Amino acid sequence: MTTRRPVLRLRPGRAARRPDTLAVEEPLLVRVGDRVLTSTMRTPGHDFDLVAGWLVGEGAVREKPEIAGLKECINEDNTIEVTLAVGVAPPRQRAFETTSACGVCGADRIVDVASAMRWKLRDDPTRVDVAVLSALPDAMRAEQRVFDRTGGLHAAGLFTTSGGVVIVREDVGRHNAVDKVVGAALLAGRLPLAGHVLQVSGRASFELVQKAAAAGVPVLAAVSAPSSLAVDLADECDLTLVGFVRGGGMNVYTHPERVRVAR
Amino acid sequence: MTTRRPVLRLRPGRAARRPDTLAVEEPLLVRVGDRVLTSTMRTPGHDFDLVAGWLVGEGAVREKPEIAGLKECINEDNTIEVTLAVGVAPPRQRAFETTSACGVCGADRIVDVASAMRWKLRDDPTRVDVAVLSALPDAMRAEQRVFDRTGGLHAAGLFTTSGGVVIVREDVGRHNAVDKVVGAALLAGRLPLAGHVLQVSGRASFELVQKAAAAGVPVLAAVSAPSSLAVDLADECDLTLVGFVRGGGMNVYTHPERVRVAR
Repeated sequence: MTTRRPVLRLRPGRAARRPDTLAVEEPLLVRVGDRVLTSTMRTPGHDFDLVAGWLVGEGAVREKPEIAGLKECINEDNTIEVTLAVGVAPPRQRAFETTSACGVCGADRIVDVASAMRWKLRDDPTRVDVAVLSALPDAMRAEQRVFDRTGGLHAAGLFTTSGGVVIVREDVGRHNAVDKVVGAALLAGRLPLAGHVLQVSGRASFELVQKAAAAGVPVLAAVSAPSSLAVDLADECDLTLVGFVRGGGMNVYTHPERVRVAR
Repeated sequence: MTTRRPVLRLRPGRAARRPDTLAVEEPLLVRVGDRVLTSTMRTPGHDFDLVAGWLVGEGAVREKPEIAGLKECINEDNTIEVTLAVGVAPPRQRAFETTSACGVCGADRIVDVASAMRWKLRDDPTRVDVAVLSALPDAMRAEQRVFDRTGGLHAAGLFTTSGGVVIVREDVGRHNAVDKVVGAALLAGRLPLAGHVLQVSGRASFELVQKAAAAGVPVLAAVSAPSSLAVDLADECDLTLVGFVRGGGMNVYTHPERVRVAR
């Protein structure tokens, strides 16, 4: 997941040439038969998890048996071929949908996306202490082996409500890190992820909320800010969205009933 | 570019409900006639710049006259219709290309991407002082009006080699922020951006290097780490890639001849 390149390191009053460790970024192509489903730039490693998690996030798959097979293509670099189970439709080709299906444009569409979610969070009784949430960013960082060497990776971590680490994944793309976590959980037969918290290293966008809700995670916590659409979708999906987890504090944007404040 | 939502603000020993300011995230659909070229989640504002810059980054356009028109669709929210000049081909549909054209898979493809660049940087004589580069992150932050209120936006800034601000744009997506800067420059007739530095708020990925090179910017500076592929492409495109610009120091990954170190 890392490689080395020469760098000119400039510090006040000093200049030195030395090798530097970088996070690897390479393209990945996902095919169903001859049809290309998507391509993404990612950090190599856990590619099956990445593809499985992406399929969950796109709403195509919600349980392991819906994926019949995942194959690395020996003669094509960086290509994964997916075989879906009989009766499972591949995700729609998003970028080329017509306007009426373009994704999310206002309140009606948010409701559509939320109601299409195949796991429902409304009755999920998960509760998590503020103290546990506060500790997750440091717990995740402690598992980030590549970040320590490169300073260049996003991460996503799945935790229990008592703060136990389940899976942590790193990637140059923050969506990929989440896909890798969700895919690993799917392939381990762990979906839906009721009773878990998904922690992410950066901001919370609409897409991250969509991916969390599609995996049945009731609580999504981000180190930084959410966007407006992330908050709106989380609200509609009955997902608890927490932002700015830092310094012992945090902001709870939606469904605060799942966050237990010490008294 | 911002909106307000209620939030439960938890700080050690305190809990308060109050309104919070969020960065707006909404989808944008880009069409040529009836054909959808791309869709992206973005912060509304400067949409024509975003679309124009995206077309530059995709290699479809390199000068203003190649875009015949940009139209906001009154009856369709968040949709821009592009009219390209006669003889200008729209960008290829990346996600659905066959494997042989999937983008970048190894050294040969890097050379292909670099040689397809319509502005060449090899002979660009731009030089910039370390002291000027060191000051750019703070200069950019000073122009980030939305970040100050939301903590939730990426930014890209175009600067002269003496550190003068030309254009700064913010967006929930870091690629979008760069597209908005490049598009504004294109529409102002300023491409290629020889003699300029592009500063970005986060990491430097392959795509950001591709966008900078496509706009003819000789120097790309990032606050954080580059990926391996970003370094490889920058090297091949004759672009100076600088990372970790912080605390008076920085790492110069490629073409350090453009960075003047004080003696």
